[in-house]
Amino acid sequence: MWKKRTAVAEHVYIADTASFVTEKQAKIVIDYGGIPGDLHFGLTKKAGAREPMYKRGTEIFNRRQISIVSVEECLEIAGRLNIPAVLPEWLGANIALSGLPDLTSLREGSRIVFPSGASLLSEGENEPCIQPGEVIQEQFPDKPKLASRFVRHAMGRRGIVCIVERPGLIHQGDQAEVWAYSPAAMKDARSFA
Amino acid sequence: MWKKRTAVAEHVYIADTASFVTEKQAKIVIDYGGIPGDLHFGLTKKAGAREPMYKRGTEIFNRRQISIVSVEECLEIAGRLNIPAVLPEWLGANIALSGLPDLTSLREGSRIVFPSGASLLSEGENEPCIQPGEVIQEQFPDKPKLASRFVRHAMGRRGIVCIVERPGLIHQGDQAEVWAYSPAAMKDARSFA
Repeated sequence: MWKKRTAVAEHVYIADTASFVTEKQAKIVIDYGGIPGDLHFGLTKKAGAREPMYKRGTEIFNRRQISIVSVEECLEIAGRLNIPAVLPEWLGANIALSGLPDLTSLREGSRIVFPSGASLLSEGENEPCIQPGEVIQEQFPDKPKLASRFVRHAMGRRGIVCIVERPGLIHQGDQAEVWAYSPAAMKDARSFA
Repeated sequence: MWKKRTAVAEHVYIADTASFVTEKQAKIVIDYGGIPGDLHFGLTKKAGAREPMYKRGTEIFNRRQISIVSVEECLEIAGRLNIPAVLPEWLGANIALSGLPDLTSLREGSRIVFPSGASLLSEGENEPCIQPGEVIQEQFPDKPKLASRFVRHAMGRRGIVCIVERPGLIHQGDQAEVWAYSPAAMKDARSFA
C-alpha cells in the first residue's frame, strides 16, 4: 500500500513573472493553493487544453498547483535530445528532486513530506507540451526540431503535478520522505475496461 | 488518454447527522470542499488512519470530499456476503452510480461531469474499513462476522472518493459523462519500483 523512499530537493523555484520559466530560490512558501506569488498559485484555475471536459476558461479546482521534476529524468531527456542539460527552470518546475529516477511513474495519491511538515499530494504525471520545448530550442538554436522532439522524449519523464496537502516551507537541500502509493492488489487485477 | 463513458446517478445522498450513514435526497449541492452540510464537507480535514504520514488530527487538505459507489459493485459485495443488499447509505455514499460495474477501478484523475456542470475529480479507490461493515452487521444480526467479511469482500469494490473540480447541482437520475483517465502508454511500461 505505502512504500517509503527518500529524495532531496536539490533546488526550489518560483515563477513570479508572466513567464512559466522558474527561478531558483533559497526556500519556497507552501500554502493551500500552491506557492503564493507563483504563476500557478490558486485554489482554482481556468480550464485549458488539459481539461477537455470543460469549455476553455471555465473556473475549476486547481489540481496543478506545483510542478516537480527529477534531476535524473531531466538528464535522461537531455541525453535523448543530445544536448548537455534540460534545466528544471525551462520546464517551469517548482522543485527538482534527486533520488527518484522514476518520479514520473509515482502514482497519484503518493505524498512528498518535507522537514517543515509541508506536504504535497501527487495528482500524477505532467504530460509534456510544446512550450518548454520552445524554451529549450531557444537555448540551442543550432539543434533542429528540439521543441517537438522534447514532447516525444519527455513523455513519461517530465515529472508530476501536485496539490498542497499541508502548508509549510521547503528549503533548498531538504530531504523529503516520499510515501509512494500503490493500490490494493485486488484492484490491479481488475481493469476498468 | 481519455475514454468517455456514461453512468446514471440512481440516487444522491447526504450525511447531515453525526453518523456517516447517508440519506437519500432529491438533489445535492456541490461546492468546492464537497456538499455543504455533509459530514465530510470542507476544504480541509483532520488526518486519520488513512494518512499515516501525518500525526493524527493534523489539519490537511480534504481529498475525500465526496464518496461514490456503483450499484453493481454493491450487489456484488452483497452476493459475496450472502445478504440481499448492501445499501449505499450504509457505506456513507453520496452518489450511487449505475452503468459502471468497475467504478472502483476508475483511475485517479478521471472526471465525472453532470448536466448542471458540476464535476468531480477522482482521487481513487476508497479502501474499505470496518465501520460500514458494522452498520451492515446491525441489519443482519443472524449472519456471523459480517463486519470483517465486508472489509475483505469490499476490497476493490467499495467505490471511489472525489474532490469537487467544478461546483453545481446533482439531481437524482442525472446522466453523467465519465471521462476515464489512463496514463500515457509509455508510463505504463515503466514501473516506479
